[in-house]
Amino acid sequence: MLRNDYPGQNCSAAATLELIGERWTLLIIRDVLSGARRFDQMQRSMGVARNVLAGRLDRLVEEGILERRPYSMNPPRDEYFLTEKGLDLWPVLVALISWGDKHAAPDGPPVVIVHKECGGRMNDRRICERCGKQMTVRDARGVPGPGAVAQAAA
Amino acid sequence: MLRNDYPGQNCSAAATLELIGERWTLLIIRDVLSGARRFDQMQRSMGVARNVLAGRLDRLVEEGILERRPYSMNPPRDEYFLTEKGLDLWPVLVALISWGDKHAAPDGPPVVIVHKECGGRMNDRRICERCGKQMTVRDARGVPGPGAVAQAAA
Repeated sequence: MLRNDYPGQNCSAAATLELIGERWTLLIIRDVLSGARRFDQMQRSMGVARNVLAGRLDRLVEEGILERRPYSMNPPRDEYFLTEKGLDLWPVLVALISWGDKHAAPDGPPVVIVHKECGGRMNDRRICERCGKQMTVRDARGVPGPGAVAQAAA
Repeated sequence: MLRNDYPGQNCSAAATLELIGERWTLLIIRDVLSGARRFDQMQRSMGVARNVLAGRLDRLVEEGILERRPYSMNPPRDEYFLTEKGLDLWPVLVALISWGDKHAAPDGPPVVIVHKECGGRMNDRRICERCGKQMTVRDARGVPGPGAVAQAAA
């Protein structure tokens, strides 16, 4: 655990990592962004222990990053949605993905982010390379990239 | 621990988190970027246990993110520098800082990143708001922001 009091640490990076630094947390946000809103979908996608996932989801709801909305009453089941505060984490994911595409994806990017409106590819400053729009998360869509094709062929 | 084999996870975000997802790791990179290159400086800055810091530094050197250069032979002491692969993590830090500035810095940003050349403020797409330059890590300098002033006054 990071210490909560951060002696000498008046730092927004440290403060952000205190909230979202646990690795599963960013993968949960990735899953919800890509449409995996239900517990079992996320659990399958990540292969994480159920109690760990449940704990992380509780924390993200408490922090106002995710919100729960019931989709079934009997049995009671919830879906998870990103709040605006949660959607603001999209640039963190984009930065992680960009680095991984360059340094940890030998077959090329598994996913390429494109601009929904014009189909152009988004660069690592979140700008559409075709039309120049400064994109938000709502403009973005992920499509399979060369790395996904290589994996499917293997 | 994240599983290393990532069943069903062909994902650059997951791959990046596997390398740098541990929270101290990004704080080490922050410290080295801000000039804290020596073990004792980092240890003081972070208040992290020495064995944990030593392990993280070893891992980052193995991964080619940091490199060691001796600055003293007797006793033997090293400084740490970011490789190009390590410098490529700057956008991840920028994204974490931007989110923290907005959601976890009640007194305002502790640090503001400015463009060395023109003094303009950098926005969260790493573009200088004064001259429009698409900035790299080498163009950037951190200066105390409103949050740092508030802390100093308290």
